[in-house]
Amino acid sequence: MISKNEIKYIQSLCHKKQRQQDNIFIAEGTKIIEELLNSCYNVKKIYATNDWMSKNTPTKVQVIEVSEQEMSRLSSLQTPSSVLAIVETNSSENLVIKGKINVVLDGIQDPGNFGTIIRIADWFGIENIFCSEDTVNVYNNKVIQSSMGSFVRVNIWYGNIETIIHKSSLPVFGAVLNGKNIDEQPNIEEGFLIIGNEGNGIRTNMLPYITYPITIPKKGGAESLNAAVATGILLSKLVK
Amino acid sequence: MISKNEIKYIQSLCHKKQRQQDNIFIAEGTKIIEELLNSCYNVKKIYATNDWMSKNTPTKVQVIEVSEQEMSRLSSLQTPSSVLAIVETNSSENLVIKGKINVVLDGIQDPGNFGTIIRIADWFGIENIFCSEDTVNVYNNKVIQSSMGSFVRVNIWYGNIETIIHKSSLPVFGAVLNGKNIDEQPNIEEGFLIIGNEGNGIRTNMLPYITYPITIPKKGGAESLNAAVATGILLSKLVK
Repeated sequence: MISKNEIKYIQSLCHKKQRQQDNIFIAEGTKIIEELLNSCYNVKKIYATNDWMSKNTPTKVQVIEVSEQEMSRLSSLQTPSSVLAIVETNSSENLVIKGKINVVLDGIQDPGNFGTIIRIADWFGIENIFCSEDTVNVYNNKVIQSSMGSFVRVNIWYGNIETIIHKSSLPVFGAVLNGKNIDEQPNIEEGFLIIGNEGNGIRTNMLPYITYPITIPKKGGAESLNAAVATGILLSKLVK
Repeated sequence: MISKNEIKYIQSLCHKKQRQQDNIFIAEGTKIIEELLNSCYNVKKIYATNDWMSKNTPTKVQVIEVSEQEMSRLSSLQTPSSVLAIVETNSSENLVIKGKINVVLDGIQDPGNFGTIIRIADWFGIENIFCSEDTVNVYNNKVIQSSMGSFVRVNIWYGNIETIIHKSSLPVFGAVLNGKNIDEQPNIEEGFLIIGNEGNGIRTNMLPYITYPITIPKKGGAESLNAAVATGILLSKLVK
């Protein structure tokens, strides 16, 4: 059983302001909750239907049983899952950049793209994603869901990406028109890979930092590739 | 000015049944409409705001001016564009398979994934996509929008994909667990690339047809890659 005020409060967490004020976010789905319970994230409360509760007995977390009807009011998904959790946000400070390939996002706007990029980074063993301040918030419900739990294994940092790149001596790769064919680029051990905004690409102020302009060769008629797809192709070629 | 009945009719076209009955679909956005007007598709009617009409003068197509308010009622987009078109569907028959790389979709369900795959196919110059009958309908609004106009340049065929592959002698590539590392696979001139359903992968009945089982090597913790991202990575390695 859950009170009206509690339902309203959880619904309010779809707003960035509310999430930031309370330093928490919402995650939904058995797979994601399982990942969270086995991560360094602090899961504060779980709401679950009888179905989930009969198969899971997490310790150290308060679990509240809700009906399917109540879950559908809590959930932001079209097809609600059997479990939803309130989780404390994590701050990624003092990240190690050297010796690693780091992804830099210059204004990614679409939550689905961002979540998919986190999942790709996790697949290729990338530990750090540096985001410009105007990149969509990682704790947005759609980012969490489309990352498929991968956000627990990737450090997501927000701030001035120009400063981060400027003070480092690592090579900087960026997908641009007329760059070097990525097929001719050998694997790398360390560096930054800058991914630009969906519509406008990499911002003008970031272009001078690119030491290795690269391009995915085009054979057909499409004007561009989706930002997440481009990230996947580039990392599959760069990562050893 | 547009009648209430006309608005209702256009809204009804978000349902597959209505689209199939009338053999038409809806496309929105300046870029997509421009691509359609320069393609073999028959654009039957255009609804546009004054903004679009002042910059475009298509011939041979009836253009109806609507207010922004009317457009927001017609549109299925969260941020409506300045133009929407009703277009006749196209049937892709007698496709040439030999000498080409053909993509085969085995039950792709997510419209965004399908649209993105069409865009990827178009980028890599793939001419044909063969879809199992339960693959999401190409004329679904979200497929059209996320393909970014690329659907006008790629043949999309629906039917029994098993038969298509069975009667051809081309090599068949399929992403599976424990396949050959895709990085060690040389480029190919012709063949099929099978992409499985988002949750369940390639169906059991299709597996025996795979002559080249391939795998994208994983270095991190993610369990899988998004279907469209996997398609992008595989095509970027297979296509010469």
